[in-house]
Amino acid sequence: MADSKFFLTPAPITLRDIAKKSGATLIGNGDQTINDVAPLDTAKDDELSFLDNIKYKGHFAKTKAGACFIHPDMQSLAPKGVNLLLTPKPYKAYAQTAQIFYPDPKPEASISPHAIIHPDALIGKNCVIEAGAIIKSNASIADGCWIEENAVIGQGVKLGEQVRIGVNATLSHCEIGAHSRIYTGARIGQDGFGFAIDPSGFVKVPQLGRVIIAEHVEIGANTTIDRGAGPDTTIGQGTWIDNLVQIGHNVKIGKGCIIVSQVGISGSTVIGDYVALGGQVGVAGHLNIGTGAQVAAQSGIMRDIPAGESQMGYPAMPMKQFMKQVAYLKRLIKNNKSVD
Amino acid sequence: MADSKFFLTPAPITLRDIAKKSGATLIGNGDQTINDVAPLDTAKDDELSFLDNIKYKGHFAKTKAGACFIHPDMQSLAPKGVNLLLTPKPYKAYAQTAQIFYPDPKPEASISPHAIIHPDALIGKNCVIEAGAIIKSNASIADGCWIEENAVIGQGVKLGEQVRIGVNATLSHCEIGAHSRIYTGARIGQDGFGFAIDPSGFVKVPQLGRVIIAEHVEIGANTTIDRGAGPDTTIGQGTWIDNLVQIGHNVKIGKGCIIVSQVGISGSTVIGDYVALGGQVGVAGHLNIGTGAQVAAQSGIMRDIPAGESQMGYPAMPMKQFMKQVAYLKRLIKNNKSVD
Amino acid sequence: MADSKFFLTPAPITLRDIAKKSGATLIGNGDQTINDVAPLDTAKDDELSFLDNIKYKGHFAKTKAGACFIHPDMQSLAPKGVNLLLTPKPYKAYAQTAQIFYPDPKPEASISPHAIIHPDALIGKNCVIEAGAIIKSNASIADGCWIEENAVIGQGVKLGEQVRIGVNATLSHCEIGAHSRIYTGARIGQDGFGFAIDPSGFVKVPQLGRVIIAEHVEIGANTTIDRGAGPDTTIGQGTWIDNLVQIGHNVKIGKGCIIVSQVGISGSTVIGDYVALGGQVGVAGHLNIGTGAQVAAQSGIMRDIPAGESQMGYPAMPMKQFMKQVAYLKRLIKNNKSVD
Repeated sequence: MADSKFFLTPAPITLRDIAKKSGATLIGNGDQTINDVAPLDTAKDDELSFLDNIKYKGHFAKTKAGACFIHPDMQSLAPKGVNLLLTPKPYKAYAQTAQIFYPDPKPEASISPHAIIHPDALIGKNCVIEAGAIIKSNASIADGCWIEENAVIGQGVKLGEQVRIGVNATLSHCEIGAHSRIYTGARIGQDGFGFAIDPSGFVKVPQLGRVIIAEHVEIGANTTIDRGAGPDTTIGQGTWIDNLVQIGHNVKIGKGCIIVSQVGISGSTVIGDYVALGGQVGVAGHLNIGTGAQVAAQSGIMRDIPAGESQMGYPAMPMKQFMKQVAYLKRLIKNNKSVD
Repeated sequence: MADSKFFLTPAPITLRDIAKKSGATLIGNGDQTINDVAPLDTAKDDELSFLDNIKYKGHFAKTKAGACFIHPDMQSLAPKGVNLLLTPKPYKAYAQTAQIFYPDPKPEASISPHAIIHPDALIGKNCVIEAGAIIKSNASIADGCWIEENAVIGQGVKLGEQVRIGVNATLSHCEIGAHSRIYTGARIGQDGFGFAIDPSGFVKVPQLGRVIIAEHVEIGANTTIDRGAGPDTTIGQGTWIDNLVQIGHNVKIGKGCIIVSQVGISGSTVIGDYVALGGQVGVAGHLNIGTGAQVAAQSGIMRDIPAGESQMGYPAMPMKQFMKQVAYLKRLIKNNKSVD
Repeated sequence: MADSKFFLTPAPITLRDIAKKSGATLIGNGDQTINDVAPLDTAKDDELSFLDNIKYKGHFAKTKAGACFIHPDMQSLAPKGVNLLLTPKPYKAYAQTAQIFYPDPKPEASISPHAIIHPDALIGKNCVIEAGAIIKSNASIADGCWIEENAVIGQGVKLGEQVRIGVNATLSHCEIGAHSRIYTGARIGQDGFGFAIDPSGFVKVPQLGRVIIAEHVEIGANTTIDRGAGPDTTIGQGTWIDNLVQIGHNVKIGKGCIIVSQVGISGSTVIGDYVALGGQVGVAGHLNIGTGAQVAAQSGIMRDIPAGESQMGYPAMPMKQFMKQVAYLKRLIKNNKSVD
């Protein structure tokens, strides 16, 4: 059970209702009441769990959970007494159901007397603005936004409805679409790393663009997104960006992308829709990464990637080629074939 | 045109004046008035652009810009009707001219009633100190500094003239030279990662040095620079450091260096002047990186690098050797030469 | 001598006392008074230094230090006139002695009138709470804690005795053990990167766990630690984590580990005790890294690592194998053996 210091105690739901809301097929007792969600290895008989990663099938075989979302193919692994909720997408069904038990928290609308709001800022209805938050002139905050403690919203910044800005985050020169969330300590809209090299010192290039973030985007903790140099830096709808990611000026990221922690994307690179970049991937500047491309963690991308291609390596190459190379080198060393 | 929510509308300038101030040779109409700067693909006939990266010559061929800085060698690619500003350094000329259109913004001198300034701090003339900024005892802030919201300037910290400290940045145990800029969320002067290993637990080594940053330095968003353990950590004049960079204790960086985003430099390493480190490069501790060395993105530096050498790889090696190795491996796999 | 703007002037100690407190064997004059500690190359005749890294034996040979901790094996390298403090662990002895000269600084207990503390928060005795710090409802702060400027302690967060929270740091959904220290700008307890992938958009998985940090832990500047998805994210006793590290949800780290700057650890990975991860190492999710494993900087860990094993490479492999591979490739290219 989630720690009540941090989470509200959820209301119970019957398995019948869970099956109905998730679209899963229930094999078991629809009248049974479920009080909470929990991982397979700690769930009790009034709690709901799920099996998604096959690595945890051992936990599933021994689970004491009252019910479990699983793929129909896994049904034979089920221990006795567990109610099964069959679905082709157990993790998605779990996510949706957990959201019912634990709806997104949000304080009641209120503006802290310790927030500092410029008289020329526009604040919508039902916003939460916490202590120490600073909202500068001509910022425009739509209905239902939540600005957390010590966050700073720069002059002219525009937030869509239901946007949440985390503690100590910093926004300038940007627009954020509805339902997007910026996590703690993220820095959005500062000048990009733009300069002309000259023997007498670098000459700063004024950075005249913005950061335009679409709807339903998530930007992780301490991530940095520089504003464009002239064109804008843009992040497409529904894209999720993890913690400590760096996104350079003029970068364009499509919709539905997954950018894992500590990725760095250099200036002016264009990333298509539904691209997945693994943790610590580096992408050089002025490249095109095609729609649906997937890049394994820590890869170094120095060339364009065609749509749909999976790559890995440093420099990055098609995944199969990289795997072949790794295996080949291993054999080479093992057999210690002389090259002298 | 830059978004007027974020940027002041620039005053128009004639091409004659632009040519004079930038030193470029004008081929076209000196009386024409330019109202703004813009990228090649969106510039209108009263706007100024530039061609620097040959990759964008297609945009140049179709540009509607009123005028364009280009290298004399590119003159033949010019579309009809564009006034040309010939210069061997188009990007530098553009940067300088864009600074005329868009001078560095700075609010009028003022100290927010919501800033918290210790009575023993020294504050120079014409400073801007924003709401939520905290300046501790014996800090010394020279004339013309700009301390942004929620930044914290620690006890005894010394800022030269015209220094700008970004929102939510944190300074302690440091001195910052005139005209330097610390971006949002940077952390400067905290204890380095210094401890003696012992079976009963690590023994902390008191970190007794400072961070000394010279003039005209830029330190990017969320970058961290630890203070020295005994000697100081130092950053030389005119060096630019990007976002999310880590600089360990006792590191010495020369002047005019470029340190791209997410680089990590381990303790006590000495980096010469005019060194360029690409994004995500890692440098081991106690090394010497010679003046003018250049290191490609993501490389892992485990040994000293001689002055002027270009390196790449993990571990890093001379650039040519790395390229040869990459090509060789590719052929090896392609030909699938048996090693068994 | 440490800059008096930042450090208190230390009280002098005799060499006899230093030898006694550190357990070192003094060869020299026990009556001599030592006024400070300093690096080998700048130490004066009333200052104490140490030789630990053999790389600096040249500095040792020329040192003007009044006394020096060294390993007995190094005794023959000693320059004339330096008092020697022989110990098998010179760096540890130096660390302990430097702590006597420079005890951990801490302001007198006080709560700033500019701190914002919820009436339902519990604040222990002798705490320091600085200006701009925000402590939310039901947070519990034990005796002797030090909460620095603009730090935000979320609802229900629990701090043990003598915990120090750095400037601008952010805590939620977590418990921190006694004597631990969280550096400036660290983000602890935000939601992990948890979602189910679906063509209609990602479905957020409520993150219902916490971050549980044991005693004597250090968490570096701008480091991010996500809370668990259901189980907790946990950090064991005495583990030191450097700057800009990312720790994903559900990760379990044992005691006495060293996690160097910019490491990324993906969700649900379990790391044993006394593990050392070099800078910029990446660890994939759902792995087991055995007790005492050591991983060289920038390595990419894609598989479990057995206890005690040293690894390096991308993908990571046993250290010897990696070194062999690097050397083999070098020879291969040098001899330019045809593969066509």
